[in-house]
Amino acid sequence: MELAVIGLGYWGPNIVRNGLENQNITSVHAFDVNPKRIEFIKNKYRNVELHKNYESILRNDNIDSIAVVTPVSKHFELAKRALEAGKHIIVEKPFTATVREADELIELAEKKGLVILVDHTFVYTSAVRKIKDMIENDELGEIFYYDSVRVNLGLFQHDINVLWDLATHDFSIMDFLLSRQPHSVSAIGKAHIDKSGLENIAYVHMNFDGGLSAHFHVNWMSPVKIRKVLIGGSKKMLVYDDMEPAEKIKVYDKGVDILEKDDVYKTLVQYRSGDIYIPHIENVEALKVMMEDFVNAVQSKSKPLSDAQFGRRVVVLLESAEESIRSNGNNVTL
Amino acid sequence: MELAVIGLGYWGPNIVRNGLENQNITSVHAFDVNPKRIEFIKNKYRNVELHKNYESILRNDNIDSIAVVTPVSKHFELAKRALEAGKHIIVEKPFTATVREADELIELAEKKGLVILVDHTFVYTSAVRKIKDMIENDELGEIFYYDSVRVNLGLFQHDINVLWDLATHDFSIMDFLLSRQPHSVSAIGKAHIDKSGLENIAYVHMNFDGGLSAHFHVNWMSPVKIRKVLIGGSKKMLVYDDMEPAEKIKVYDKGVDILEKDDVYKTLVQYRSGDIYIPHIENVEALKVMMEDFVNAVQSKSKPLSDAQFGRRVVVLLESAEESIRSNGNNVTL
Amino acid sequence: MELAVIGLGYWGPNIVRNGLENQNITSVHAFDVNPKRIEFIKNKYRNVELHKNYESILRNDNIDSIAVVTPVSKHFELAKRALEAGKHIIVEKPFTATVREADELIELAEKKGLVILVDHTFVYTSAVRKIKDMIENDELGEIFYYDSVRVNLGLFQHDINVLWDLATHDFSIMDFLLSRQPHSVSAIGKAHIDKSGLENIAYVHMNFDGGLSAHFHVNWMSPVKIRKVLIGGSKKMLVYDDMEPAEKIKVYDKGVDILEKDDVYKTLVQYRSGDIYIPHIENVEALKVMMEDFVNAVQSKSKPLSDAQFGRRVVVLLESAEESIRSNGNNVTL
Amino acid sequence: MELAVIGLGYWGPNIVRNGLENQNITSVHAFDVNPKRIEFIKNKYRNVELHKNYESILRNDNIDSIAVVTPVSKHFELAKRALEAGKHIIVEKPFTATVREADELIELAEKKGLVILVDHTFVYTSAVRKIKDMIENDELGEIFYYDSVRVNLGLFQHDINVLWDLATHDFSIMDFLLSRQPHSVSAIGKAHIDKSGLENIAYVHMNFDGGLSAHFHVNWMSPVKIRKVLIGGSKKMLVYDDMEPAEKIKVYDKGVDILEKDDVYKTLVQYRSGDIYIPHIENVEALKVMMEDFVNAVQSKSKPLSDAQFGRRVVVLLESAEESIRSNGNNVTL
Repeated sequence: MELAVIGLGYWGPNIVRNGLENQNITSVHAFDVNPKRIEFIKNKYRNVELHKNYESILRNDNIDSIAVVTPVSKHFELAKRALEAGKHIIVEKPFTATVREADELIELAEKKGLVILVDHTFVYTSAVRKIKDMIENDELGEIFYYDSVRVNLGLFQHDINVLWDLATHDFSIMDFLLSRQPHSVSAIGKAHIDKSGLENIAYVHMNFDGGLSAHFHVNWMSPVKIRKVLIGGSKKMLVYDDMEPAEKIKVYDKGVDILEKDDVYKTLVQYRSGDIYIPHIENVEALKVMMEDFVNAVQSKSKPLSDAQFGRRVVVLLESAEESIRSNGNNVTL
Repeated sequence: MELAVIGLGYWGPNIVRNGLENQNITSVHAFDVNPKRIEFIKNKYRNVELHKNYESILRNDNIDSIAVVTPVSKHFELAKRALEAGKHIIVEKPFTATVREADELIELAEKKGLVILVDHTFVYTSAVRKIKDMIENDELGEIFYYDSVRVNLGLFQHDINVLWDLATHDFSIMDFLLSRQPHSVSAIGKAHIDKSGLENIAYVHMNFDGGLSAHFHVNWMSPVKIRKVLIGGSKKMLVYDDMEPAEKIKVYDKGVDILEKDDVYKTLVQYRSGDIYIPHIENVEALKVMMEDFVNAVQSKSKPLSDAQFGRRVVVLLESAEESIRSNGNNVTL
Repeated sequence: MELAVIGLGYWGPNIVRNGLENQNITSVHAFDVNPKRIEFIKNKYRNVELHKNYESILRNDNIDSIAVVTPVSKHFELAKRALEAGKHIIVEKPFTATVREADELIELAEKKGLVILVDHTFVYTSAVRKIKDMIENDELGEIFYYDSVRVNLGLFQHDINVLWDLATHDFSIMDFLLSRQPHSVSAIGKAHIDKSGLENIAYVHMNFDGGLSAHFHVNWMSPVKIRKVLIGGSKKMLVYDDMEPAEKIKVYDKGVDILEKDDVYKTLVQYRSGDIYIPHIENVEALKVMMEDFVNAVQSKSKPLSDAQFGRRVVVLLESAEESIRSNGNNVTL
Repeated sequence: MELAVIGLGYWGPNIVRNGLENQNITSVHAFDVNPKRIEFIKNKYRNVELHKNYESILRNDNIDSIAVVTPVSKHFELAKRALEAGKHIIVEKPFTATVREADELIELAEKKGLVILVDHTFVYTSAVRKIKDMIENDELGEIFYYDSVRVNLGLFQHDINVLWDLATHDFSIMDFLLSRQPHSVSAIGKAHIDKSGLENIAYVHMNFDGGLSAHFHVNWMSPVKIRKVLIGGSKKMLVYDDMEPAEKIKVYDKGVDILEKDDVYKTLVQYRSGDIYIPHIENVEALKVMMEDFVNAVQSKSKPLSDAQFGRRVVVLLESAEESIRSNGNNVTL
């Protein structure tokens, strides 16, 4: 397998490196419209085949896969051309700028029998996969709420707001963990700095069938860096703190038991406060696992974990949240 | 001055103790409908004059002040009778169950020239007053956002939801610090445990004129206890973490400077990351300061810091947030 | 049973309160040479019988037990007179100012069949007892080291140095947990503030048979408060952090396995990094448990957990550490 | 300038990279006795000139500097040959295995007018330099104690004990910050795992003229990673926590004031508890600063910050501490 990486900015070089380290990828190609970034890769890695334009990659029959690691506004066009040229693709998250673009790419890939993997790296981390296992094994019981905070003094993007930058991570983690889609989304956002109106702070709320709800706070202008998810279940509750170097997941045997038998109200609710458990998380690079998943999907003609439908669902949520912001927080039904 | 405390549950005994410790209060009286609570006070403190009913307090001309420390549903009736009997009053927060009740009490107190203090204890803490000083001295610059989280595995109340229990604190702190009222409120709440529908988790959002917005997360069903406020200003940013024993306030010389002169967009935004400063907070009991404020207000016929209008504004916010929850998150205009 | 408390300074009132709350103690008496402290108790608690001198307590035949809660320099004299008067005694830690005093009190109590409990409160805490259980159940394996840090900006005592003030706690916890005595002690101390030479910082090292060693850092002049014990075992390791409100004990399934079979040295050592476990600690007041232990010892004529021999062993360690400090850190053999 | 790096294990590649990134170094050479490590560098960096033996480096007249980044046991021989060949040298810390070796290298370098820089990287970090500035500006006042803890579940070295591995860092930081040498050293160490007797835990104490003392805890077998230094001064106290990503230094306006005028002892000591200040630390790679210092020293024929005498003083402390361990903790006079 030969892989070409298009876009060598912040994230692209990591894909290049993981391509080089994957045993099934025999050759890594790279291209960026900015010659300085090509120069950067040239100095950093040997054995990367550098290209002067996208066309030479598309035309190269030895290249079977292309990773599109550009700003989201370019994803659709570049990914479409890759698919048309018969290449399997990795697309940086978020998948596309609109749901329509996602649909078109999905249709095209299906017609041509090609693999699409959307690089939602977080779902390949050991921590998120560990939580997923716990939820699937019903260790948390019925999930009541999902509360996510991702804030820091972040770079102000000039083409996308804080939702498309940060909430992309959180929506993908939530979708992966809960395996459910909300029936409505509402959101509020503010642009304090950018005169052109790109929001730097946003709150998003999602309603699901049953009592479950999810809430997200994303913020480019916080003095402290917080990456914390609380998950409240009927059996156990969990905190996933991605800032913790070694204790990312804490599982609390804490909760409220409802004793249905009693007829006096006050005795119906009983508090439970038990042990706390911090599972050991294997220290593997998520991108390495993702690359293996991609290679395996291509070779076995199967769907990767983070497939196009998954990427599309995240775009649906982003689009809906943005629509709600534009309408002052109205509920947007999915 | 003589003070009577009505309601000797969780909080009342603290008012009793602070009454006993205040030099200007010569005598403390107490009453509760539950004889066990009277017995509790009898065993715990000498020198408290215990009463068998409310009437004997109302009729006692030596008593000039009454503290109503009962569930909120009783505030209006007990406070009204106290005012009618010519007593100054301390009312436990939240002031009343409805804005109408608050209005009636305010009118009555004004007619009779009586003092009302609403026991929003937090505004008397050294930490909150320190932040207030900083904001008044314009140390933070223009305030962009106010983000508050108050969550833990809390007692499920049987008469009020998590808003009236926890958000009361946060709304009062926010109103005190910002000295501004929002023009609209939206809120979302869920009742996971209580079949009768009292919400145990709620998110509230407030919009102000200009770019300022405030957001609140209150939750009775969190595995961890968090009491954290982020305030983002144009000059500095601040974290107020009430769980920290000694470092409650951290002021960050961090932010984003907008350079208006440049014509190239990318250079307009500049990041600033400077020192952090943790002001020393005096260790005084907030309730003691509040009691002194009350005594002083009574003696000088002035308004206390936490006066009835302040208490009313908090009730307005609670009522509006609740109305929004009932209408699935619609914006409620104030 | 009737209990008299002698010494009503910082700690004595807590003994008074726990005496009042214990069902088997029908009456609590109190005395202090300082009339202000008697006045303090008078105002704080009803039902305490106040005395004007120690003699009236010693002569009172209804009083069967005396708690000596004075500075350590007075322990011996007051405890001896109590025993001579036929009273069981609680003695505040450290037991006595010298081992000789401890021996004399022990002999006297044995002759008269009286109970001595030394108030090493920490061994009655749920946290310390939980760790004790784990060690007894061999969950940690062979214990390699015990490392204890107890530092903060503490009050400078005028009659005892930081060893007798702070290390008393640590030596008692260590003795209780390990159930072993060291064969030698060395210590270093410095007096930075006190011209009369009372040390405000000290380091103590203890050697045990086998590889086990224990180390202690106590300090009255630290900017931060630390109370942390590391226990390194062959099976598991443990951190006991008494500053943590809810997560005092963390058990780490971490360590080093020695694979004896291999003949190549480098493969002999294998690292193990597993889950972390935070056991739930019951929230009970240690002093309450201690009071129950005392009452039970008196009634059943048995030894309390924190008996005179235990208190004596702590004094032996304190005396030895002090002797080592006086000789510039020489090893003092026990 | 051309630099050759000898030893391409864990640390060597970092020296290679910083050599490549330094503008004044025109060419970087590298060699390791293990061909796999040469292969590693070959794949990782372009533009590194790889050698098959040390001789070809020594003979190369274009190479003016050699970095010896091997185990300490090889430092002396390799450094000596480099100096004899007229090369300036960087020597990985600790400088040498004995003070005698250090003396011989120093003499040789002086005779030949060559620069020796010992790679005590920590003294080039922004955090340590910031503390140094504060001490030099007398912000802490008289320094009373220096307490250092460096523990974690570390790799067991097979040729050196925990002192030579970890305490090397701490001794260099302490020497740099305090600019004073102790008059005696005592130490205790235990080998729990290694049958050949390499200590995995050690405590070291140093006595200075005046009241100052320093204490060090180094440990390869701790469940938690701690890198914390407390410095207690008469004016201010400081905590340097290298595990903190952004708040490495906290300065506490806390302390004890001695009021000399009063004649009553108890009023002589007054506690001070003021603000806390967290200075902003610039985020620069220490090794980059060190490389610049080396280049500058070579070009201006001056001493680098971390020069041979500095490296020698650390070896003196290590040797003395080890001697003390061998004699069961006896004071070793310097």
